[in-house]
Amino acid sequence: MVPRLESFFKPKTIGVVGASRNTTKIGHAALKNLLISDYECKIYPINPKEKEILGVKCYKKVTQIPGEIDLVLVSVPAKIVPQIIRDCKQKKVKNVIIISSGFSEVGNHELEEELKAILEKSNMRVLGPNVMGYKNASDGLDASFVYGRARQGNLSLISQSGALGIGMIHLANHEFVGISKIIGVGNKIDIDDDDLIDYFAQDSDTKVVGLYIEAVKDGRKFMNSIKRCKKPVLVVKAGKSIAGARATASHTGSMAGSDKIYEAAIKQAGGIRCRDIVELFDMARALAGQPPAQGNRIGIITNGGGLGILLTDACEANGLVVPKLSFKTYKKIDKILPDIVKPNNPVDLTGDAGFYRYEASTRALLEDPNIDGIIVASVHGGYARPVEFTGAILKMIRGRKLHEEYKKPILATWIGGKEFEDLVWDLKSAGVPIYPSSWRLARSMMALYLEGERLKREKEAG
Amino acid sequence: MVPRLESFFKPKTIGVVGASRNTTKIGHAALKNLLISDYECKIYPINPKEKEILGVKCYKKVTQIPGEIDLVLVSVPAKIVPQIIRDCKQKKVKNVIIISSGFSEVGNHELEEELKAILEKSNMRVLGPNVMGYKNASDGLDASFVYGRARQGNLSLISQSGALGIGMIHLANHEFVGISKIIGVGNKIDIDDDDLIDYFAQDSDTKVVGLYIEAVKDGRKFMNSIKRCKKPVLVVKAGKSIAGARATASHTGSMAGSDKIYEAAIKQAGGIRCRDIVELFDMARALAGQPPAQGNRIGIITNGGGLGILLTDACEANGLVVPKLSFKTYKKIDKILPDIVKPNNPVDLTGDAGFYRYEASTRALLEDPNIDGIIVASVHGGYARPVEFTGAILKMIRGRKLHEEYKKPILATWIGGKEFEDLVWDLKSAGVPIYPSSWRLARSMMALYLEGERLKREKEAG
Repeated sequence: MVPRLESFFKPKTIGVVGASRNTTKIGHAALKNLLISDYECKIYPINPKEKEILGVKCYKKVTQIPGEIDLVLVSVPAKIVPQIIRDCKQKKVKNVIIISSGFSEVGNHELEEELKAILEKSNMRVLGPNVMGYKNASDGLDASFVYGRARQGNLSLISQSGALGIGMIHLANHEFVGISKIIGVGNKIDIDDDDLIDYFAQDSDTKVVGLYIEAVKDGRKFMNSIKRCKKPVLVVKAGKSIAGARATASHTGSMAGSDKIYEAAIKQAGGIRCRDIVELFDMARALAGQPPAQGNRIGIITNGGGLGILLTDACEANGLVVPKLSFKTYKKIDKILPDIVKPNNPVDLTGDAGFYRYEASTRALLEDPNIDGIIVASVHGGYARPVEFTGAILKMIRGRKLHEEYKKPILATWIGGKEFEDLVWDLKSAGVPIYPSSWRLARSMMALYLEGERLKREKEAG
Repeated sequence: MVPRLESFFKPKTIGVVGASRNTTKIGHAALKNLLISDYECKIYPINPKEKEILGVKCYKKVTQIPGEIDLVLVSVPAKIVPQIIRDCKQKKVKNVIIISSGFSEVGNHELEEELKAILEKSNMRVLGPNVMGYKNASDGLDASFVYGRARQGNLSLISQSGALGIGMIHLANHEFVGISKIIGVGNKIDIDDDDLIDYFAQDSDTKVVGLYIEAVKDGRKFMNSIKRCKKPVLVVKAGKSIAGARATASHTGSMAGSDKIYEAAIKQAGGIRCRDIVELFDMARALAGQPPAQGNRIGIITNGGGLGILLTDACEANGLVVPKLSFKTYKKIDKILPDIVKPNNPVDLTGDAGFYRYEASTRALLEDPNIDGIIVASVHGGYARPVEFTGAILKMIRGRKLHEEYKKPILATWIGGKEFEDLVWDLKSAGVPIYPSSWRLARSMMALYLEGERLKREKEAG
């Protein structure tokens, strides 16, 4: 069965209503993004006044285009959008993206209701209005009007804010987090978050789903789609505070709703709530690159006692535990430690720890059935050897055999300066989840644990 | 009156017991750090087997050094430390730093008690044992055995963990946070956190005091010193969780104590508790470079509505409020906004905001008596102009007249990628507090608000 929205995300024919020669127009930018896409499809600019735009033949109306149309992008003044949508309906266009703004988000509810009325008794799917469109990095298609090339990966993002969506692409590129699809949802007169979650749930290019939402139209449908999704769903729900809710109303014209209800409902549906965008990417990086944790028992390896304690605190504050070492593991690690220290959890390798101590102690924790996830940390305590620290992590994380055998996540953190920077980039670019603070690391480990729990429930349910 | 510990931090004569020609010895590193210091003083290596070390004349015993000795660093095996301390007492040495480890932190309580007994009825002040020493960046003196040059500034740090202390220097350098003094306290047989807080309270080079503590020996003295200190005191208290407390016991041999009691006591004393090292530096940067907030009413300026909501949520979660704009401010900002939007708080300048909109709206909020602190944010929404965003902030923050007239803190944040990076460095190197997440920014603004409240209480008390 072809999934719903397949022709939306992978159209064979695309029309652009409002395509323009004027380089300052959104319709010009949208057409250009389609043309620079690395994607095979037919593109039809539509503008009653032009014969061709950017070298492509132009049509006067949607209805004059020959053959089937999978997707139409609409970027014209709000007041003429209803007529365009009627044309699309007549032409039996499968999907429409209404980029134009000037609807409920500025108080023009009447015009938005008019659009909804046109859509009744139609199979046409509509995204927007007041939306940026989407970028499908997995297939190389850019059906949006904003510039920004995403690094290809397996995080699919749904953003109620267009600008934030683009900001997220840049941030994701910078953080080496790869994206499959990113889509704005705008005023949601038809295609809603739950439709998109359902699509990403079955999309083989998507491994993790992320959402930035300000308000949800139908709470039950939204939560059910998260519950159905057999992939981790990360949710940033803005408008938590009273002033935030007021700002939400002014931003997208929607009500934020009770935050406590959202909090409980997201949790119950098996989603993971993130505090902000940074945390969403932190968790996405861990979930995309590491196996989930089979339990909440964490082993910590550090070259500085203080950092070990801070990590322990951050873990325990986020529902993880840092158990004592088993006798067997104690004996293994005792052999590799200098005489002045005894093994413990956190394992303090002491300040001058190099490749060997890091590698051997990580291996000991991988082999320990009482440990579900591993944290490897370095503090630049004068004698620190950053390149050996990161080298050992790279070795352990890249060791496929180790990973396949033990299926345990390894996350890293450091405290230090410039001398760590290039090494941190090395790790990030290799997909290794490394975090600049104990808290961010612990939250990401928590996400891996929650995903492990979700998978267990899924298995139990059959 | 000469403050206590003045001869400790600004010694005119320094002896190094355990100075060595062997480059792998701690006593060698300590002597070398003194010799490379940019500080005027007399240095006496002490080693019974050598005539000179690193070109400096060597003495056999402390008692053989001519004249007064302000400070002696001790780095010899633990078992001979008591004899050295007796020599120092006999010589009437003013201050001693016992670098040597092997005392209570490894369970050797007897040897530590022996040291304490020697110190009875003596005016000699002793730091340690099991300690790195200190670095006095304001005066250019390095009285520690670890390498690490701190950027000069006005944050003074007390760390119970030596390695973490050094890691903090590197992190601080990287984050452009300047340090006045950084000191390890180790096992605290004499000089304790409260002595150091008292010293930094009157030290003209110190503007902000930061502490990393695992355990406090005398809670009342500690809290009283924070209460007495007329400067912001930032506290990272590790060992919050049960496993963290267990790790603390193993790290420095001390008991972490009830976390709730610490939490309440630090707050009551007027200190600010930080979640981790990263947050300590975040807050220190804000407190060192910006005026405190006279109240908790925050104005937010952004080019993306979503980011504005996230910032509002983060502010309100941390005791700040984001009030509606006054009519006067509304009118001012209305003039500079494009027609499609109306002023609000957060002020949404819309995606293509440049220098002028940022500058004029920040100015309007500076002038508004109902706003106590300002947040300026940019999200790379395709049209963002990062260099104009940071340029406007630099102008507003560097505008001394504006600062002197309005005395309001300005903090910044962004969501975007590589194109922001150099600009962020520009701001950081100019001392502008800019943060990569809404939460970190809001926490730092909270610290500025708490400092404002502390100053008010101080003023009321006379």
